[in-house]
Amino acid sequence: MRVLGVDPGLTRCGVGVVEGVAGRPLTMLGVGVVRTPADAELGLRLVAVERGMEEWLDEYRPEVVAVERVFSQHNVSTVMGTAQASAVAMLCAARRGLPVALHTPSEVKAAVTGTGRADKAQVGSMVTRLLRLSAPPKPADAADALALAICHIWRAPAQNRLQQAVAQHASAVKGRPS
Amino acid sequence: MRVLGVDPGLTRCGVGVVEGVAGRPLTMLGVGVVRTPADAELGLRLVAVERGMEEWLDEYRPEVVAVERVFSQHNVSTVMGTAQASAVAMLCAARRGLPVALHTPSEVKAAVTGTGRADKAQVGSMVTRLLRLSAPPKPADAADALALAICHIWRAPAQNRLQQAVAQHASAVKGRPS
Repeated sequence: MRVLGVDPGLTRCGVGVVEGVAGRPLTMLGVGVVRTPADAELGLRLVAVERGMEEWLDEYRPEVVAVERVFSQHNVSTVMGTAQASAVAMLCAARRGLPVALHTPSEVKAAVTGTGRADKAQVGSMVTRLLRLSAPPKPADAADALALAICHIWRAPAQNRLQQAVAQHASAVKGRPS
Repeated sequence: MRVLGVDPGLTRCGVGVVEGVAGRPLTMLGVGVVRTPADAELGLRLVAVERGMEEWLDEYRPEVVAVERVFSQHNVSTVMGTAQASAVAMLCAARRGLPVALHTPSEVKAAVTGTGRADKAQVGSMVTRLLRLSAPPKPADAADALALAICHIWRAPAQNRLQQAVAQHASAVKGRPS
């Protein structure tokens, strides 16, 4: 499975591509940041995020895009920009027919470090180890994007089993004589 | 000046096109709502908002797009969807090189009714009167989109004068011998 992880943001949108399956060593294919100038008009910044996302999707052809789920309670000053950048990332993926998966920050931290309350440094060091990199990816947004992709690869089997169970239950209920 | 007003939302995104200049009677060219199914995946809903916006932009060719400014303090339960729908609307406009103007809900209410604390019914009835319609546009999101367009037409001259003054001041400062 090849996953593009996106840590959404208007100033820095982290992107990272990871390939692999749960239970096997993972491979990083690319990592980087899509940046937009803070003094540009909002609409133009969103166009720049779109262009950057399209380049990453064109170059790496992921099968899934995993985006951090944005909460309104969190970081009130930047949350609007984060929500808007994440909308553009989801739009670009869905327009190509790619599935979009959302994971919360604590799900990502828990998947990668074992605790939902890990700090940036812990996430960076686990990402470095799991992908056998020589140094933690910089900036933190890039490392977070890789962590999102890893989280998705590891959670996907469980999510798929859950979806199958729900679908089977639904069809079983439907099939019952009323 | 032809303005497309957008009252952003994922379930109902109000759109309205108004033509005219400040101080003269205004004309409504079109009004409606872009809807997306609440049970669809978020990425696909954003694709549906994009498609709807593109249709309105293609059909009415506005010179400006006026979008309601979304605040994170406001309506916490729906604010993420509103921010994401507004991002798609701004993206569609900016991608065509159209200027995007943001107005707050209280600016819109004050422009149209004279008070920033007007309710939906007051806004709807003033929009009906100002555009000489036979009945208030339904749903309220559609009326709000028209109110945004009206607000933009009426505020634009002041905003332009302000921008010109700032630009003149900046060039005067620049031109001074140091």
